[in-house]
Amino acid sequence: MNMSLDCYPCFLRQTLKTSRLAGADEKTQSQILHQVLDRLQDFDSTKCPPEMSCQVHAIIREQTGVDPYSQGKKASTQQALALYPKLKALITAADEPLETAVRLSIAGNIIDLGIYHEYDLEGTIERVLAQPFAIDDFAAFREALEKTERILYLADNAGETVFDRLLIETINQSVIYAVRGGPVLNDATREDALEAGLGEITTIIDNGATAPGTVLDLCSGEFRDFFANAELIISKGQGNYESLSDTTAPVFFLLQAKCQVVAKDLGVPMTSIVLKQGKGSA
Amino acid sequence: MNMSLDCYPCFLRQTLKTSRLAGADEKTQSQILHQVLDRLQDFDSTKCPPEMSCQVHAIIREQTGVDPYSQGKKASTQQALALYPKLKALITAADEPLETAVRLSIAGNIIDLGIYHEYDLEGTIERVLAQPFAIDDFAAFREALEKTERILYLADNAGETVFDRLLIETINQSVIYAVRGGPVLNDATREDALEAGLGEITTIIDNGATAPGTVLDLCSGEFRDFFANAELIISKGQGNYESLSDTTAPVFFLLQAKCQVVAKDLGVPMTSIVLKQGKGSA
Repeated sequence: MNMSLDCYPCFLRQTLKTSRLAGADEKTQSQILHQVLDRLQDFDSTKCPPEMSCQVHAIIREQTGVDPYSQGKKASTQQALALYPKLKALITAADEPLETAVRLSIAGNIIDLGIYHEYDLEGTIERVLAQPFAIDDFAAFREALEKTERILYLADNAGETVFDRLLIETINQSVIYAVRGGPVLNDATREDALEAGLGEITTIIDNGATAPGTVLDLCSGEFRDFFANAELIISKGQGNYESLSDTTAPVFFLLQAKCQVVAKDLGVPMTSIVLKQGKGSA
Repeated sequence: MNMSLDCYPCFLRQTLKTSRLAGADEKTQSQILHQVLDRLQDFDSTKCPPEMSCQVHAIIREQTGVDPYSQGKKASTQQALALYPKLKALITAADEPLETAVRLSIAGNIIDLGIYHEYDLEGTIERVLAQPFAIDDFAAFREALEKTERILYLADNAGETVFDRLLIETINQSVIYAVRGGPVLNDATREDALEAGLGEITTIIDNGATAPGTVLDLCSGEFRDFFANAELIISKGQGNYESLSDTTAPVFFLLQAKCQVVAKDLGVPMTSIVLKQGKGSA
């Protein structure tokens, strides 16, 4: 999915927010902002937003020497882990455990420190358990799961990882869990996945890139091989959708529509929940 | 008041909004946005936001050939004129007609198509009539009015002009009513002031500039003379405050705090109402 003109003001907003979170003084904030203006001026708008975002956050890390989301990620993981036993029991008791686990995994997608200052995790869980899917390819998803034995699971954010764990435990198949190659926003890295308990039930790999999405051109050759050979890919969140919406790989996208640009691309209202079969998984 | 870093994303947002209102297609929107990025990159941030805004809206008018707020301005004026008899009666019946007229004039400042998609005019009137001032230099304002016989009144937006008319009728002194030199946002021009009925009770002049504020460096020599010789200046709205906050001229600022940057500069919460004596009017 291409960068939208509406992404431009949003990138400047995110630049300031993240620079301040990193403790940058006014002068450094201004220097960072002007570097981002330069990149926006030159950015090829046929590329996807996470590719620009990758540059924005690299500038902030270079200028401040800080990963500003480090603490927030740990807090999100702990918050989600505290809910884990209750959510596990909910799935076990459910009439349709797979659907409940899918819904919970999508509920966890609310943990997004790039978009929100704060979020209501328990309220979101309640909402998403009851909310109709705006795009509902659940039947195709279940069928695809039955036909495969090995899944490539593209992680999104720290804390959301715990909700992914619940889905992966429910699916009960061999899963490769792919995280980002380094810190960017509150996206999950290997460390975050391990803290969420994914190490015991999946093979964790990283994609070699620091984009908040899966920008294949930026990923490692090793990851691209995993991606090219995958029989079934579960893709979590907006960033992965933005970077893979046009792929012909066999992907199912699980996400909440949290920004107007993504909602418009999907053709759904804001705050929708989506389980969308990619072009290549039909 | 200097441009804030927080103005940068807001200018891009306003660029897109206004370009679309002007009917620009996607390609033209993109060209306009990139021109604005250039200007932002080079903008001297010790200058005030209306000076940047002046450039933004000039680019949009050049690229589209359209004044996108023309219709909205006429609608705002008609809406306000329809309320005029009721508001006039309210002032006449008031215990403190001057205070009521000042409050109504500030209530009219909600008519701001640069910030809002829509606004609740009658709800705002009700709120502002009851709301305590966050900065209350009313006593000094009343005193200054008694000492002078000629007022320079700096207009803000079309429609708000009708609320200015109510205040000017209440003050009942000789008033020079200064509007913008040409269309910018929904700021009042001579035509808008005439439609609001200001022609019969004031001498209307224009400031020779198309900034949404009073950027003296951009104004005509004639206007600067009026400004330099004014005994008392009533300044309406955020744009005039942003461009004149540091002046030593005898100004009283009447406005609602409608954006975080202005609210922070004034040291008041958002949606505050303000009657602030300028540095030179003490």
